[in-house]
Amino acid sequence: MKTIGVLTSGGDSPGMNAAVRAVVRSASARGIKCMGIYRGYKGLIEGNIKELTATSVCDIIQKGGTVLYSSRCPEFKTEEGMKIAIDNCKKFGIEGIVVLGGDGSFRGATDLSARGIPCVGVPCTIDNDIASTEYTIGFDTALNTACELIDKLRDTIGSHDRCSVIEVMGRNCGDIALEIGIATGATATIVPEEPFDFNTDVLQRISSAKKAGKNHFIIVVAEGVGGVYEMAKEIESKMNIVSRATIIGHIQRGGSPSVKDRVTASLLGNRAVELLAKGISNRVVGMNNNEVIDTDIFEAFKMQKAFRTDLYELSKVLNL
Amino acid sequence: MKTIGVLTSGGDSPGMNAAVRAVVRSASARGIKCMGIYRGYKGLIEGNIKELTATSVCDIIQKGGTVLYSSRCPEFKTEEGMKIAIDNCKKFGIEGIVVLGGDGSFRGATDLSARGIPCVGVPCTIDNDIASTEYTIGFDTALNTACELIDKLRDTIGSHDRCSVIEVMGRNCGDIALEIGIATGATATIVPEEPFDFNTDVLQRISSAKKAGKNHFIIVVAEGVGGVYEMAKEIESKMNIVSRATIIGHIQRGGSPSVKDRVTASLLGNRAVELLAKGISNRVVGMNNNEVIDTDIFEAFKMQKAFRTDLYELSKVLNL
Amino acid sequence: MKTIGVLTSGGDSPGMNAAVRAVVRSASARGIKCMGIYRGYKGLIEGNIKELTATSVCDIIQKGGTVLYSSRCPEFKTEEGMKIAIDNCKKFGIEGIVVLGGDGSFRGATDLSARGIPCVGVPCTIDNDIASTEYTIGFDTALNTACELIDKLRDTIGSHDRCSVIEVMGRNCGDIALEIGIATGATATIVPEEPFDFNTDVLQRISSAKKAGKNHFIIVVAEGVGGVYEMAKEIESKMNIVSRATIIGHIQRGGSPSVKDRVTASLLGNRAVELLAKGISNRVVGMNNNEVIDTDIFEAFKMQKAFRTDLYELSKVLNL
Amino acid sequence: MKTIGVLTSGGDSPGMNAAVRAVVRSASARGIKCMGIYRGYKGLIEGNIKELTATSVCDIIQKGGTVLYSSRCPEFKTEEGMKIAIDNCKKFGIEGIVVLGGDGSFRGATDLSARGIPCVGVPCTIDNDIASTEYTIGFDTALNTACELIDKLRDTIGSHDRCSVIEVMGRNCGDIALEIGIATGATATIVPEEPFDFNTDVLQRISSAKKAGKNHFIIVVAEGVGGVYEMAKEIESKMNIVSRATIIGHIQRGGSPSVKDRVTASLLGNRAVELLAKGISNRVVGMNNNEVIDTDIFEAFKMQKAFRTDLYELSKVLNL
Repeated sequence: MKTIGVLTSGGDSPGMNAAVRAVVRSASARGIKCMGIYRGYKGLIEGNIKELTATSVCDIIQKGGTVLYSSRCPEFKTEEGMKIAIDNCKKFGIEGIVVLGGDGSFRGATDLSARGIPCVGVPCTIDNDIASTEYTIGFDTALNTACELIDKLRDTIGSHDRCSVIEVMGRNCGDIALEIGIATGATATIVPEEPFDFNTDVLQRISSAKKAGKNHFIIVVAEGVGGVYEMAKEIESKMNIVSRATIIGHIQRGGSPSVKDRVTASLLGNRAVELLAKGISNRVVGMNNNEVIDTDIFEAFKMQKAFRTDLYELSKVLNL
Repeated sequence: MKTIGVLTSGGDSPGMNAAVRAVVRSASARGIKCMGIYRGYKGLIEGNIKELTATSVCDIIQKGGTVLYSSRCPEFKTEEGMKIAIDNCKKFGIEGIVVLGGDGSFRGATDLSARGIPCVGVPCTIDNDIASTEYTIGFDTALNTACELIDKLRDTIGSHDRCSVIEVMGRNCGDIALEIGIATGATATIVPEEPFDFNTDVLQRISSAKKAGKNHFIIVVAEGVGGVYEMAKEIESKMNIVSRATIIGHIQRGGSPSVKDRVTASLLGNRAVELLAKGISNRVVGMNNNEVIDTDIFEAFKMQKAFRTDLYELSKVLNL
Repeated sequence: MKTIGVLTSGGDSPGMNAAVRAVVRSASARGIKCMGIYRGYKGLIEGNIKELTATSVCDIIQKGGTVLYSSRCPEFKTEEGMKIAIDNCKKFGIEGIVVLGGDGSFRGATDLSARGIPCVGVPCTIDNDIASTEYTIGFDTALNTACELIDKLRDTIGSHDRCSVIEVMGRNCGDIALEIGIATGATATIVPEEPFDFNTDVLQRISSAKKAGKNHFIIVVAEGVGGVYEMAKEIESKMNIVSRATIIGHIQRGGSPSVKDRVTASLLGNRAVELLAKGISNRVVGMNNNEVIDTDIFEAFKMQKAFRTDLYELSKVLNL
Repeated sequence: MKTIGVLTSGGDSPGMNAAVRAVVRSASARGIKCMGIYRGYKGLIEGNIKELTATSVCDIIQKGGTVLYSSRCPEFKTEEGMKIAIDNCKKFGIEGIVVLGGDGSFRGATDLSARGIPCVGVPCTIDNDIASTEYTIGFDTALNTACELIDKLRDTIGSHDRCSVIEVMGRNCGDIALEIGIATGATATIVPEEPFDFNTDVLQRISSAKKAGKNHFIIVVAEGVGGVYEMAKEIESKMNIVSRATIIGHIQRGGSPSVKDRVTASLLGNRAVELLAKGISNRVVGMNNNEVIDTDIFEAFKMQKAFRTDLYELSKVLNL
């Protein structure tokens, strides 16, 4: 393999740039040229492709977002689009591609692999919702961002004896909510994976915390559950506690990556290049028991993510 | 004056604790005892009052929120409530009160003054909406909090060629929006003080920035104007740019105070005690041309806050 | 077991308060009373012991330092001191103790255990230097603090084409230096575990990075190696690059704990109480493959910490 | 004036990029072309000069350091160097230059002005040591950086009953130390402007704070005074309090600029262009009573900076 490409696709996540850098530097160290494909699969179709050298990725390890940009590309899902993409790979000499993104982006990768362009996926999403890896790049930074903001809200609700109902990201996966619930001492944590009864799991918990002497309350709700404005209203009306809802939203996706995200991105980007360099394709890299692994991409799609029931139960034990 | 009281009222703001500390320490240095009145005027009525010593306010200068808590107190506006409050002042030996808060809180202070308990107001609100001072404690911290969050959003919108419409705090006063608009290079800044035409002031500005080569756009909107969700929809449909709305909300009220807020709180808390110690009452302290001033409280109520037209115009010159 | 004690000993680390909270709440959930022992073993000797209730540990999860304080206590190593400590345990009804700290603190714990007060250790140190666990509470926060500061230094050295030689904490263990070296893209990383030749491992690496087009350089040095001022001078004189040394120092020990440290502290504090509640003693809790484990305390002392050679090698591949 | 240049010189300061952006955008809005001169006066001599357009300065407002780089240039002080610089101005059509930096950089500006290239200075230095303006760009960010770090140290010294002696920047000007002393509640603040007696001003203050019940102590020392390691030793030996010294150093120069620095940079960069556009030269812009001013550059050099005795005295009143 003489030349590989790298692209970022789907929602950006902190650490993507660290992963891009790792791919480029790791390729460079092996004497492999690396082409940056801009705006994801769209760039592959439009030929928006430029060489990245070891020094061109200097000082991006600390940057949020993605220097390669990301974009939707419905055209890539058409036979015609795919054909142009493959032609561009040939035109630019790209013999393999590292795809940074989530499950959706990896499906595109399998289409390219099937047409002779070996691909390896690197899991980059703040949601931690990829079953084949225990960790996705960006998760830790998003957690710390959300936690810092809730710490600020705590100042206000603590001063006013209030309740704050906060939506954190996570459509199908409650991992952000789960860890944030523990880390902020939330009186209740609501995730898509577990059924909840508002009366028992929220109102009664607030009530017993109040009885125990607590004067302010944090309720953490995953995006996939939603309804924070309604919840705040109901808490206010039924519990007589001034309650406010906050949706943190995309702020969780930005910001300089944490050390964990930089180091994990470095490990995974490096492994992805290692695989391509050995001619191995259709793999998703990831972490398992803190070690770098790689998984067959089709196997990966079939996996079911386990829910951290231990953390869910722990939050009920530790949090008033 | 042998004993004074201090209370925080209205919304909390970063720097309130630094001001409480300054009041207590400044009193202590003058041999005056200082009583902490908890949960604002409510604490005055309920007798929730405890002595604060020079060491009891150690290590609060860096804390957000208010260690004295704040609360609504409709009872304080009744003749009966006022009577109990005055009785409690006598009971606890309180001969003067430093009131930390906004205009609403200062009105309560005049009622106490009229009944023989001299009061001095210290402007604490993130909105910078008090006419008698060029600066209110908490404003700078709120600005930096909002700015850091928008810097994070910038990572995401810059990576995806998007538009972000962001509501920052400020009901009647656009000062937060104004400075944030400059500091984040917002393509448009919308404040309650200036009429705006969505087509000219937002859509056309985005359009010409796009023509100049810009690929992502920040629109800053003051809370008092609102409507960010609708604006995002309209930008998306009319400009064909993916657009998202974010309401930063109360997060702006929390967090450790900035140096400016700590220093200003120290200066103003100290002056408030100085005035009470000299038997001067019914004043609001504040800053003018970077110097500490104090103003007759009734004069202060009549003042009109000047809008920083220079900043508003500058943002149009500097921001694509 | 009806009553347990909890103390923090040795250097503080971010997440200690989260662990104290977890111990108290976990005990409370099991109907066990929890006594806070202040200033480590010194408090045990001086009887500086007070009950901690589930609500008394509200709002400490986000605080750096330790609300229980920490202190040296040479007296504890004497027979007489030990006797008083045991007497105080009886006096306060303490039937078991959770000790938060590092290896030194755990040795004290074994002495108590040997005299009939069962103890369990919870590893709290920013250095990650405890062999029986893959992670020690505080490590992640210290990493992020050091990384943020070096990101700031990068602004300056990047603007001035300079070299920055930075000492991070870690006396015998290079883990902080190792991860920081990766995360900041350090041109060279020097740890106590690996021999280094200044000429080959530092000067030549700078030289080849410069040749590749890099204009500024970060050298990360573990505390246990030291000598950053001399290194900076040598780089400046031999390479003709303005070089400055910085010792980050104890700043790395403070600050609000990261989510990872809060969650890990919650898990480990809870497990420690679980063990004591079951009458199990002389254990150190910890993490292995991301799962909570506990290890015989004497076995733990004999273990050798493995050095992450993979990270050390990776940093040479990825960093110019 | 059709074309101006902009350069950054001397030590970098946060907000320099915001000022560069303001200069470019303000020129652009007036139909004036703006050339970026790289690495200060060195770039003028070496012809390292490129056009900056309104969009080329997108997304730099939030960046620390200087995108134009800075460098020493002894050659510029020679007659020959000056001649080349003037020739390059002609070659690139540069009819006036905005110089961002401190007093040293402004002296170079007067040399250029004397040879027919009108210059205007914009005060950029974290030290706040320019007499003609009450504020220099970067000061506020440096303050907040130093303050956040000391807040972290406070966690540790508070947990261990220790003393921390901290050197902050400021060679001849104690402004950083002064405001940091207030903002961190330092028991003693030592600045170059005021003589101090170690026994009275440090040891005795610690002693009386200890007597009042305080258990940890912060001593803030300006760089221009120095000697923090010796002070820590003396405090430890004479007061029997474990004491540690920390030199924050260049970390204070980096980081994303605060809102105040971004807004001030926007105002001052804009005014500098306004002056050049009107053919006015040899001015230093600045702030006075929160308003933008400009001063004759030779007058500016003669001014004496007033020391904020009020803050110095206040810190003695408020800080135990």
